[in-house]
Parts: sequence; structure tokens; C-alpha cells
Amino acid sequence: MSASADIGVTGLAVMGSNLARNFARHGFTVALHNRTTAKTDALVEEHGDEGNFIAARTAEEFVAALERPRRLVIMVKAGEATDAVIQEFAPLLESGDVIIDGGNAHFADTRRREKELRERGIHFVGVGISGGEEGALNGPSIMPGGSAESYESLGPLLERIAAKAKDGTPCTTHIGPDGAGHFVKMVHNGIEYADMQLIAEAYHLLREVAGYSPAQIAEIFTTWNTGRLDSYLIEITAQVLAHTDAATGKPFVDVVADQAEQKGTGRWTVQIALDLGVPVSGIAEAVFARSLSGHGGLRAASRDLPGPSVATLGEAEAAAFADRVEQALYASKIVSYTQGFHQIQAGSETYDWDIDLGAVASIWRGGCIIRAAFLDRIRSAYDSRPDLPSLLSDKQFSDEIGAAQDDWRSVVATAVEHGVPTPGFSAALAYYDALRAERLPAALTQGQRDYFGAHTYRRTDREGSFHTLWGGDRSEVSTD
Amino acid sequence: MSASADIGVTGLAVMGSNLARNFARHGFTVALHNRTTAKTDALVEEHGDEGNFIAARTAEEFVAALERPRRLVIMVKAGEATDAVIQEFAPLLESGDVIIDGGNAHFADTRRREKELRERGIHFVGVGISGGEEGALNGPSIMPGGSAESYESLGPLLERIAAKAKDGTPCTTHIGPDGAGHFVKMVHNGIEYADMQLIAEAYHLLREVAGYSPAQIAEIFTTWNTGRLDSYLIEITAQVLAHTDAATGKPFVDVVADQAEQKGTGRWTVQIALDLGVPVSGIAEAVFARSLSGHGGLRAASRDLPGPSVATLGEAEAAAFADRVEQALYASKIVSYTQGFHQIQAGSETYDWDIDLGAVASIWRGGCIIRAAFLDRIRSAYDSRPDLPSLLSDKQFSDEIGAAQDDWRSVVATAVEHGVPTPGFSAALAYYDALRAERLPAALTQGQRDYFGAHTYRRTDREGSFHTLWGGDRSEVSTD
Repeated sequence: MSASADIGVTGLAVMGSNLARNFARHGFTVALHNRTTAKTDALVEEHGDEGNFIAARTAEEFVAALERPRRLVIMVKAGEATDAVIQEFAPLLESGDVIIDGGNAHFADTRRREKELRERGIHFVGVGISGGEEGALNGPSIMPGGSAESYESLGPLLERIAAKAKDGTPCTTHIGPDGAGHFVKMVHNGIEYADMQLIAEAYHLLREVAGYSPAQIAEIFTTWNTGRLDSYLIEITAQVLAHTDAATGKPFVDVVADQAEQKGTGRWTVQIALDLGVPVSGIAEAVFARSLSGHGGLRAASRDLPGPSVATLGEAEAAAFADRVEQALYASKIVSYTQGFHQIQAGSETYDWDIDLGAVASIWRGGCIIRAAFLDRIRSAYDSRPDLPSLLSDKQFSDEIGAAQDDWRSVVATAVEHGVPTPGFSAALAYYDALRAERLPAALTQGQRDYFGAHTYRRTDREGSFHTLWGGDRSEVSTD
Repeated sequence: MSASADIGVTGLAVMGSNLARNFARHGFTVALHNRTTAKTDALVEEHGDEGNFIAARTAEEFVAALERPRRLVIMVKAGEATDAVIQEFAPLLESGDVIIDGGNAHFADTRRREKELRERGIHFVGVGISGGEEGALNGPSIMPGGSAESYESLGPLLERIAAKAKDGTPCTTHIGPDGAGHFVKMVHNGIEYADMQLIAEAYHLLREVAGYSPAQIAEIFTTWNTGRLDSYLIEITAQVLAHTDAATGKPFVDVVADQAEQKGTGRWTVQIALDLGVPVSGIAEAVFARSLSGHGGLRAASRDLPGPSVATLGEAEAAAFADRVEQALYASKIVSYTQGFHQIQAGSETYDWDIDLGAVASIWRGGCIIRAAFLDRIRSAYDSRPDLPSLLSDKQFSDEIGAAQDDWRSVVATAVEHGVPTPGFSAALAYYDALRAERLPAALTQGQRDYFGAHTYRRTDREGSFHTLWGGDRSEVSTD
């Protein structure tokens, strides 16, 4: 077997197979490997005509088939399986070769693996891939970390198979060293959770407060999708809401169990944000909303708790309310992205990744679940001012949120009066109001902490740390 | 040196010293040890007359001074220092001896240490101690984990030095095996964060919406402290708000920098709740509010974001508003504790700790920062029905929250209209409304997940997992 493959893929479940086919369809020769050879054979049999595949039976054959520097993509379950495959292949590789992990790894694992392999002269590139099975085949958004040198070798291939934004730009770029790619993918998923939660709340309000049917709400979302909310998630929301269950004739959304599941990256996003000290309340509320929905016993036991009795809106009011919900959804979405990009900025500073936030927005414009016209606007905001303190500091976004805020407040107040839970809208608005507050009651919190724990406080009028002798004469002492 | 000490304390910083003195004041002979002997000497010199101390110069002397089974309390900084001290002492101990870690350890570390020492025949007891320096000296709330056998030896001592609830009950009990004590202490701190945030929001509303001065708000809190909100934190809030800064003559709370700090246990609580799948949105918002307050640059850059222009309430309206704020604060507090106790329940189930929730409420009634009349009510709720699905299922609490809800909704709506951030009140209300909802929009979320990721869904009308062929003819297939 001659070393003629441009790239190799090991782990040929759906994501791995589709990625391998994507490479092959773009003219690359792809070496294939799987723990059991049945999957390798099946892939070649079913899709061998799509391009050049080299089916390897063993790890040694697989490695021997790869041109140097070797580029070897691991597509196995994140966690121990990834470590096992790395241990299997690393001894067969040479200095300068590149191992690519395309799984949903935790960025801390990627940092560890990158360091270990770097010491052995091997490039390790953790790559976030978004777009699901369909994206892997037809063009995902690809977020590679690892060394700049590895991107020189790998980038041209990724740029070929990645989704293209409407302006033709490939949806991939070198995010930054070591775990930067998996970190950004994680935050992408966190933002996806928040986006989905906000959409769910908008739907819930249109249903419960305005009294619209799922089919009517589908039309409203379809209209929204022609405006500034234009996005994949809004589009498929309309599709899901318009769908009728064949078995019952009921709206599909009414026969689906209302217990949402999660796979972990939303949770990771919040856990890491807490470590970084970044408030991502919108993402947290989205994760909590899913976990709450799954506590069936607790919900059943709570169903009789008293709620308000407020009438559903009349037809004329309903239409005006729907417009206000669009404003609230859009304003809350700006806040979600503000929080998510803050987290990426904080991660970049903490780990010295030097991430280009405009480039991140750019490569999310196609292929991934949160693709949206909106991201083009975020790209512009960061491209024109890379040191933007936050998205809310961009004039266009602050003008829009300023124009939306009356309706936003009205929608949250209405939700509260009607007893419809809108944790995402509320958290976003509270974040907005806290951020712009001249003074926060955190001063009281610090006073309390000094009182019960002598934790000290700073003053507004001079430097230093201070403590009040609360148990004594209440004079103030400097604690520097 | 004869083995005559009932207990030993190593690590004589303020917390360790105070705990040692507390033991001695209750008639126990206390062996003392510190890495440097200066602290040991200072303690004996300053407080030697408070009881029987045995000052040990070395680890060997210290261990030799302890009666068997030896009880040895480690009071060092949580983390590596704890491991180092354990490694130093464990080889000197014998089967049946008890090492007690009184630091703020992460419960996962405590589980690891307990397991390692158990294999060597040594009991390891992670103990959560709440009440700060003053509590350590005069009676803290004590939350010991570890084996039931170790509590037989240790419990009688702890019960003597612990705070006493108003009915005389000692504020300590055997929480459960291995890390249960440190876990419960962690959640205690998370609830403390939420309590403090809710108080801060109440203050902020009374200030910004009702136009009251800090001194007037101090009076309001003092009044609240005579009712169902009677608690240490409400009491000291009034003290802090009533305090005038001597240097400027201004209200103290106005000269304190409004950037709140945190020490980590609040963050841990949320991170672990995410792992356990328990929605603790009130604690999360409290942690985020602190981190947001600390982002000075971001806040400065956001100060000009548009807000609403609503007039402050008139005097007559203000008094009625303050009453509504009390309702909102109380209702939100019930939700915070509901979430916190849910987390303890989930931890207990996951780690097989068999924690008595009524007993936890009981030992928080004295000594600790969140001590409150309210906890007596929680104790009763769980004592009369240990299998309570949640605190909100208790009739008295659900009646109260039902009576409070109109005002609670009104306060949140007012906050939103006035642009005052109330993330804690809002999150609590959204949780309440989500919990009692007949249907949640999580059904839409599941539909979306099935659309873009073939994640499948369950149905309301029959068992099994299903997938709709969204890209095909939209028929439904069973995926079991």
C-alpha cells in the first residue's frame, strides 16, 4: 500500500463516515479505518463511488496509507475512547504528523492531550465540528485548535469541506492554540441552548398569552424568519410547529413529551463560565429549564400550586403582543450572544489563545445549528472594532436593544402576570439592567460579608481594603 | 507526655484556634499543634486559662498526647495543604483513629480521602463548619460526614461545642457517609448566596423604586425581622444599612465599592447542581450577580445603555410597595430553599448518603449564617413528611406562596418597568411557574432536537422513542 492518502479517518460511525465522504467528494484521497472492519467495508461498498477511499484493515495499514505529514482524524466517542485511540496510533506516527480529534471533547482534555503529544513531536488538533450528521456530510462549521503550524497543513483541507457563508467564505479558521477549538465549540453549543430556550419562551407566550394555535405560531415564525431573526433555528421552529401528527391529527408539538434532554456541552459551558467568572445567565437558565422539564415527579407534585387567573388576549391585542414578543426575543438574543462572546473572550485571555471574535462569528454563519443573518452583524461589529468591550457596546446593537426595551419590558411583565415562565427573557433583561446600573446592591453584599466574615471591602472614594469593627465601636480600620 | 487529650487541633490560624478554645471551654483537654510553634505558644499564652491545653512541638508529640481512639482535627487551607497534613499524620495513627477535616473542602476530595484512609483502617470525617470565626469560638453549625462509627466517638464532643437552636437542640448531627458533610455545607453556602442576593434586590427596589433612604430601609428590615423573615441575615442587613460612614457622613452602603467578591463554594454548588441535573437558578443568579458586579470595565462601557424613564413612587404608594417586596422576598426565599434542598436530596440519592433533610434544616437553625426562624418551619415540613417531593409540596409553604404570588408578580413587573435588575426574584418566579405548568415548551425543544440532530422524542400518548423523517416524507418511525 503506497502512502497516497491526503487524510485518514478512524471511527466510522455516522459522523466519521460522513466526514470521510465529505473529504472524498472534494477530491481528497481518504484512508479509512475502524475498530471492526465491517463498517469500513460497508462505507466503501455503499459510497465508494463518491471518491478515492483506501480501506485499511489495521492501524499499521492505516498509518502506512497516509502521506507525510500524516493527517489522521479520530471520530470516536469523547472521553476514554479518544485516549485509547491516541495511545494506539501515536507510537506509529512520526514527528510533524497531525492527529485531529473531531469528537465533542472537553477542552481541558484537549489541552492535556495536546501537551502530551507536543512533547512527542506530534501535533494534536482538537476540532469542534457543528452541523450534526448532515453538516458533516455536506459542510459543517469547523473550529480547529492546535498549533498554527498544524493549521498550515490541515487548514486547506478543512476549508474545502467546510460550509460556505453566503459571501462564499469557508466556515472554518484557526481558532487558536491547544484547546481553543473545542472551547469555542462548547460555547457555540451553550449559545444554541440559550437560542432554543428563548424560542421556546416566545412560542409559549404566543400560545398561552395570545392564544394562538401552533399553526398560527408557525406562520408568525415564518414571518420573523424574513427579518432580523432570519436563522436556521427560527426556520425549523416554523417547520416543527406547522407539522401535524399523523396518528392523532393533533399538532405535532402537542403529542411530544415536554421533557427536554441534554448531552452535556450546555452544562460544561456554564460550569466553565463559573470558573472564569463570566455571567452566562441565559445559558444557565436554558440548561436549568431542560433539567426542570425532566423532573416529572416533582412537576406532577407541583401542578396544583396556585397561579394567577388572567384572561387570554383578544385578537387585536394578540397581534400587537406578537410584535412585542419579536422585540423581546431579539433583545434577549443579543444578550445571549453578548454573554457567550464574553465567555470566549475570557477563555482566550485566560489561556492565551488570542481568539479573533469576528472570525468566530464569521465561521458560525454557515453549517452550524446557530447559523443566522445575525452573525454577519456580530462579525462586522468585531471586525470594525476588535477591542469592543462587549457586543452591547456596538452602536447598532445598543440602538436596537434601546428601541426594543420598552416592548421587552412589557413582554416580561406580561409573562409574569400571566404565570408563563420566561426565565431566559427575564435573565437577559436583568443582565442588561445590571450591566447599565450606575450602582449595584453588591455594595450591601460586601457590607454583609464584612459584617459576618470580616471579608473586608473597598471604598468608592479611596484605594485600599477596609474593615468595620462591627462587634466593637464600628470604627473603620485599613486592612492593607 | 501522657495520652490524655480528648481531641487535638492542628492548624492554629483563627478558625483552628477558635475551635480549639471552644473545645477547651467545654471541658475537653485539647492537644495543639501547628507547623510553626509560634502560633501554638501564642494561643497557650493568650488563652491558656480558658481550659486544658497540651502544646505539642512535633507531629509525634501531638499524636502521643491524644487518647485512643485518637481524634485529630485538621484546620488548614483546603486543597493540597490538607493532603500534605494527612500524609504527615496518617502513618502515626492506628486503626480506629479519626482524622477530622474542618476546612472548606470540596466534597469530591473528601470522598477520595475518606476512601484512601478507610483502606488503612482510619476514619476520615469531612466536617462542614459554618458561622465564621465567631461561630467557631462560640458555637458553629457543624455538618460532619464520615462513617456512623466515627460519629459515635466524635458526635458527643461536637454536640457540646455546637450552637444550640432556640429549643436547645445542638446544631450538629451525623449528615451521612464520606463527603455528605462537606456537600451539605457547600449547599448551605449556595443558599447563603441566594439569600444575600434576594436581600440585595429587595434593598435595591426599596431604594430605586420606592425612593427610601438606607436609614429608612434599615427600619423596614428591622420590622421584617420581627416577622416570618426573622433571621441573622435580615438582622445584619438592617445594621449595615443603618450605619453611617464616619469619614464622609454618608450612608455606609454608599461608600462601599459595589463589586461583590466570592470564595468559591457558591460556584461549586451550581457546578455540582448542573452535574446532578438540579435546577438551582436562584443560586446561579446570585453567583452571576457577584461576578457581573466585579466586571468594572464592562459595566463602565455599558453605563450609557438606554433604560426606561419611570418616576419614583410617591410616599403612600411606597409603603404599600414595601409590603409587596416583603411578599416577593419571602416567596423567592421559599424557592431558593426548595432548590437547595432538592440539590441535597439529589446528592443524597446519587451518593447513597440517606440524608435526613429535616435534620439538616434543624442544625442550620443556629450558629450559621443562614440561621432563621424559617428553618424551623422547614424542619417541621420534612419531619412530618420525610418523603416530601419538594418544599413547595408542604401545605403551609404552598399556602403562603399562593398568598404571596400576586404581590410577587407585581414586584417583578414593577422592577422590570423601572429597570431595576432582580435576577433572583425573576428566576425564582420563573421556576415556580415552570414547576406548576401543565405543559412546558420543552416539547418544542425536543421537536427541534429531533429535526436537526435526530435526537428522537417520546410521545404523550404511548411508550417508546420516535423520530420524524423531517428531511423525507415526515412520517414517524419508532427508534426503540
